[in-house]
Amino acid sequence: MPKNTSKPWNGDMIKMDIRVRKIYEALFALEDLRELFRQALPAGLDEHEEAQFSSEIARLETIVQELKEGKGNPIKHIGAGLELRTREEEFININPIQAGGRLTPEARKALIAYGDGYSVCDQCLVGRLDKIRKPPVEEFHAELADFVGMDEVRVVPGARRGFQAVTASLIEKGDLVIVSDLAHYTEFLAVEIAGGVIKEVPSGSNHIVTGDAVAETIERAKEETGKLPKLVMIEHVDYSFGNVHDVEGVGKVAKDYDIPFLYNGAYAVGMMPVNGKNIGADFVVGSGHKGMASVAPSGILATTDEWAPKVFRSSQIVGDVTGRRFENKEPAMLGCTLMGGTVLSMMASFPHVKERVKRWDAEVKKSNYFVREFLRIEGNKISSECPRKHTLSKVDTRDSFDRIAKTHKRRGYFLSDELKRKGIVGEFAGSTRVWKLNTYGLSWDRIKYLSETFIEIAGKYELPVKRK
Amino acid sequence: MPKNTSKPWNGDMIKMDIRVRKIYEALFALEDLRELFRQALPAGLDEHEEAQFSSEIARLETIVQELKEGKGNPIKHIGAGLELRTREEEFININPIQAGGRLTPEARKALIAYGDGYSVCDQCLVGRLDKIRKPPVEEFHAELADFVGMDEVRVVPGARRGFQAVTASLIEKGDLVIVSDLAHYTEFLAVEIAGGVIKEVPSGSNHIVTGDAVAETIERAKEETGKLPKLVMIEHVDYSFGNVHDVEGVGKVAKDYDIPFLYNGAYAVGMMPVNGKNIGADFVVGSGHKGMASVAPSGILATTDEWAPKVFRSSQIVGDVTGRRFENKEPAMLGCTLMGGTVLSMMASFPHVKERVKRWDAEVKKSNYFVREFLRIEGNKISSECPRKHTLSKVDTRDSFDRIAKTHKRRGYFLSDELKRKGIVGEFAGSTRVWKLNTYGLSWDRIKYLSETFIEIAGKYELPVKRK
Repeated sequence: MPKNTSKPWNGDMIKMDIRVRKIYEALFALEDLRELFRQALPAGLDEHEEAQFSSEIARLETIVQELKEGKGNPIKHIGAGLELRTREEEFININPIQAGGRLTPEARKALIAYGDGYSVCDQCLVGRLDKIRKPPVEEFHAELADFVGMDEVRVVPGARRGFQAVTASLIEKGDLVIVSDLAHYTEFLAVEIAGGVIKEVPSGSNHIVTGDAVAETIERAKEETGKLPKLVMIEHVDYSFGNVHDVEGVGKVAKDYDIPFLYNGAYAVGMMPVNGKNIGADFVVGSGHKGMASVAPSGILATTDEWAPKVFRSSQIVGDVTGRRFENKEPAMLGCTLMGGTVLSMMASFPHVKERVKRWDAEVKKSNYFVREFLRIEGNKISSECPRKHTLSKVDTRDSFDRIAKTHKRRGYFLSDELKRKGIVGEFAGSTRVWKLNTYGLSWDRIKYLSETFIEIAGKYELPVKRK
Repeated sequence: MPKNTSKPWNGDMIKMDIRVRKIYEALFALEDLRELFRQALPAGLDEHEEAQFSSEIARLETIVQELKEGKGNPIKHIGAGLELRTREEEFININPIQAGGRLTPEARKALIAYGDGYSVCDQCLVGRLDKIRKPPVEEFHAELADFVGMDEVRVVPGARRGFQAVTASLIEKGDLVIVSDLAHYTEFLAVEIAGGVIKEVPSGSNHIVTGDAVAETIERAKEETGKLPKLVMIEHVDYSFGNVHDVEGVGKVAKDYDIPFLYNGAYAVGMMPVNGKNIGADFVVGSGHKGMASVAPSGILATTDEWAPKVFRSSQIVGDVTGRRFENKEPAMLGCTLMGGTVLSMMASFPHVKERVKRWDAEVKKSNYFVREFLRIEGNKISSECPRKHTLSKVDTRDSFDRIAKTHKRRGYFLSDELKRKGIVGEFAGSTRVWKLNTYGLSWDRIKYLSETFIEIAGKYELPVKRK
């Protein structure tokens, strides 16, 4: 990575802006200042501490001056052996899984204030995370349930922990669970840990899961085993193609068979409008770090009044000597779930997230703009459904960029090199064959820049590009 | 809370230092500047963005000037309806559960850089969090296992998820699990969710769990049910008294009966030296947000080469249509666990944590100093074992401060009021009877200030105080 703005890395590489590094340096200097107060007496700094304060302030002033002027040496490390991470500031990041989890400025600020371990528990009065009123965790839960069109919700350490809470509550050893052939591995693991048996729904040649296919799989399972599945677990958007599946159709079929339906809303909740009851879902699971601009691991599990007493049931276990009970605690949640920075990041991003789902159409439009431009490069293909209904797309460059890779001295790394040179990262380095990218949250300017960069690279390597 | 330094709240209240609020304000202004670059093209800011940059820089300069001079108006909010949290900077925080989870400056810096959702996955090559080399997650795991004297370790979303992974792997419905009568509720829930049955070990009148008591409980369970327990789960330090229990004795007994022993190291791992194998533990569970200066939810589950294949076993489930397998994933972990800011905060604090456990004796010394001073106030009692072997203590003020509360117009809140007036928070507001506090990590200056403050309050209300 280029380390200085004084000259570019090489001829056609974009210049890195030193100011990004200076922002980090100033943030870190402020954290050092903050630590002074964390160690001091409440009455104020003593003489020695005041001297330290003055010297830290002088350092901060120098950094701010350099930031203003865009000069100075770039920092590279955080301390504790960790490198800086600057890919959201210095690059356009097209990583397929990271787009929806980028923090909002509000979340980053909340994290600064509430990073400490049990920071959310200052005013915990009844020993329940979802009942804390200050910060307004209880209010957040109420709004969150409404946001996904369900009755009750809990935050969980990642969507996978939502799946687990449901399978642990509904699945006995040997019970059948319907998932799609595009199901995320965490759905499989949640079934495995509960002792369930997977029955996969084929998504067919167009990689779209339909209600009919779910019905056929239920019938097949019934025929083979003589029993009905205990749970249908289908994703709205799959991780592989970013295709949008017929979850309303699945909801209807699940209702017909009277089988509870867990709607997997990773890549959907927090990115596109989702209404669980309209979909016919009994459970809505979403991911905080995949779709709600939140710190990992975070996510949500929402359900209906019908199912809440099952998955959010009270603890029943009793101490045989003490007679202790914990009826205020929910065993499927293991009590409190996200007791600090994670839940605060969700809460801080939430106002923005509520607004951004309303702009989903624009995101899809940008996704399709990119795809159209990308397809101008001959040999480029899109493996996902087209036109795109999502921003996560699987692309196939075996007949374009990979043909260059075959003879390039950097092999498959050449495309990553070229993209990075232009300030684009996030594709899997060395992968020029079939790979994934995500345009979610990129502005029109960034989308156009991204599209032009691919065309430019194709031009450089004399790959034919269709006229507009 | 006082809002300005220009004059104190009232006569004897300490002045708040406006500079703390100015540090937050500067941090937030820098996050706004950072966001500019997150939205811009990699090539650099455009004219409009440069104008915004200039105006944000001007704002930052003003804040830094105010910070330097200690003047200006204090900010109170983060945005998104959230209030600032300043209790670690403006107060001495004696909250019983928060002390070990306060972030180090390094963790706060890492969180600034790695807060975004899947930030740790930039260079994930094999789909396993614990194998990521950049940032050095793999190296961290190796050092972490060594740190607790075990063979293998995984990070988990809180100690409770470590308990759950073990009970899910070892306990069948109806199996007996030994816990103490001081066991944390999350141990109960982890047993409940696995379908196990609790057998409590009585800690006796001195509230100390011994190996002998565990042996007696195993014998009693065997007599009553005709079967041996499948797991012994005992805490090194309990959440109620902060007493230090005879875990080595428990380890020996567990070995004698050939029952696996889960050592609950919340309030121990990351605070005091812990060597799992010397203790005779088969599993060591620690909490990141309780003892390792980390963001919640975080924790560790460590084990031996003997047990690793059981709890860290590979996934065996297979898709019936696709034949998909996920042998690289661990079902008891549900695959990856802490994919961003949580694990980065653990890693960033780790060098400091490794050093601080060596200074445990000094922490205990400070705890005992405080207790001795506290006991000078007539009627004050310590419910925990004395001399203290830990920094978390249960105190009994029914015969001292609660006698004042009975006639005070603020009732039980008077003590919180008085403490807050002197810059001390973290006790449960309104609780003046039997309550808990934690002196962990407080400097000698802070310990002395804390002790003197209690004496001073006693004096104000004419409670007799013994001479030194």
